Amino acid sequence: MEKIRVIKIGGNVIDNPEVLDRFLADFARIEGKKILVHGGGKLATRLTKELGYEVQMIEGRRVTDRQTLDVVTMVYAGLCNKQIVAKLQALGCNAIGLSGADGNIVRAHRRPAKPIDYGFVGDIDSVDSPLLGHLLEVGLTPVFCAIMHDGESSLLNCNADSVTQAIALGAAALAPTDLIFCFEKRGVLRDAEDESSVIERITPTSYQGLKAEGIVSGGMIPKIENALQAIAAGVSSVCIKHADDLLTEGGTTIQND
Amino acid sequence: MEKIRVIKIGGNVIDNPEVLDRFLADFARIEGKKILVHGGGKLATRLTKELGYEVQMIEGRRVTDRQTLDVVTMVYAGLCNKQIVAKLQALGCNAIGLSGADGNIVRAHRRPAKPIDYGFVGDIDSVDSPLLGHLLEVGLTPVFCAIMHDGESSLLNCNADSVTQAIALGAAALAPTDLIFCFEKRGVLRDAEDESSVIERITPTSYQGLKAEGIVSGGMIPKIENALQAIAAGVSSVCIKHADDLLTEGGTTIQND
Repeated sequence: MEKIRVIKIGGNVIDNPEVLDRFLADFARIEGKKILVHGGGKLATRLTKELGYEVQMIEGRRVTDRQTLDVVTMVYAGLCNKQIVAKLQALGCNAIGLSGADGNIVRAHRRPAKPIDYGFVGDIDSVDSPLLGHLLEVGLTPVFCAIMHDGESSLLNCNADSVTQAIALGAAALAPTDLIFCFEKRGVLRDAEDESSVIERITPTSYQGLKAEGIVSGGMIPKIENALQAIAAGVSSVCIKHADDLLTEGGTTIQND
Repeated sequence: MEKIRVIKIGGNVIDNPEVLDRFLADFARIEGKKILVHGGGKLATRLTKELGYEVQMIEGRRVTDRQTLDVVTMVYAGLCNKQIVAKLQALGCNAIGLSGADGNIVRAHRRPAKPIDYGFVGDIDSVDSPLLGHLLEVGLTPVFCAIMHDGESSLLNCNADSVTQAIALGAAALAPTDLIFCFEKRGVLRDAEDESSVIERITPTSYQGLKAEGIVSGGMIPKIENALQAIAAGVSSVCIKHADDLLTEGGTTIQND
């Protein structure tokens, strides 16, 4: 099969209608096989509060109790997913919205309640590559939210970056796969204050130096280490870039030496 | 292709978890190709009120303004649809949840604003039979909510009975198709007070008599006339029965003379 692109957008894109529309217009323009994974955005938190449910946090992370699960299922799998699909359809992109439960395409398990019980939060077990390939072969563009299931009737709220990574690995079993994370910066920056200081290329070897020098730090460390894992596991390249730069060369590409 | 069954459940099933679970267990047990269409239930109205939005009615029918559209998209395409899909998956039925926008599988248009503007309410134009056939051929069981789209990025709230009828006609283009409407009665009754007075079979000819005698009246008239239209257009039979009777012989079957 020809190359597959797996592209992730986060809440910062979802929350800004103009940025989202611009991104979707660019996404629709990409030729060939592609998959979109979207995160959540602020609407779920706002809706939780408006409904008078308590937003529970443990160590800065949200607990997905039964009511929160219902809200994120409504917002991510319902409103966000179908609005994106309808917009892509209007742009001529034959999108199909999916949760992990649909076609059992992504299977997850509930995270153990110890040491911390985050509720209905899941970690990914497997992706059905043949089904993914099948949808792509008939010209569909899968659009995933991060709501997965455990195969025992429970829906699970998953981390959208982890879902993206798992789907990229599922795609890599079918064809060479490029993974693109769109976020709010131009890429991995040498200087966090300077958007023009994008590091164009990171390899497993160069990463060790960047980390040792402290150039890569904080929230970028897990992002890059996940990317390195993805390329070690068979993804051709991982690019981290701004949502506005989807069709341009910009961003940081992480690939093998 | 082998026979296809298209089955519709309404709010009365969705709103009662025990009835729903029993129905889904029966549905999962049906062998062969099948499609589920589900209506809404009371959650959308409850959520609309909890969020402080006004529920607008004109001549007894709800107006779908922008906020209502968001709520029904969240509830029908999100929560209801994904919960049903996850439950069917746990029962060994390879369900895939769909709105009309997904794969552009059902195309609708917004109902004209005159004489009455019901807002984002749609009527069905077409069903993509080849795509429907494709999903069925790979062993998937489509589960439709009644949220459709206009191909110009607007989602539309549609009547679930009309969606079901359109999908049954789309299926009938592929293979002999039986359409089953599950509702809260045992079938079309000779005596509305007597659940044992089910009329087993109605044909275009016998319907004229039943209508003239006043045995069929009120809300049953459009149901039966739609069913007669469906069989005239190529659906093999239409059965109206109780959700608990899915696997049994009961109900009223509407078919050609």
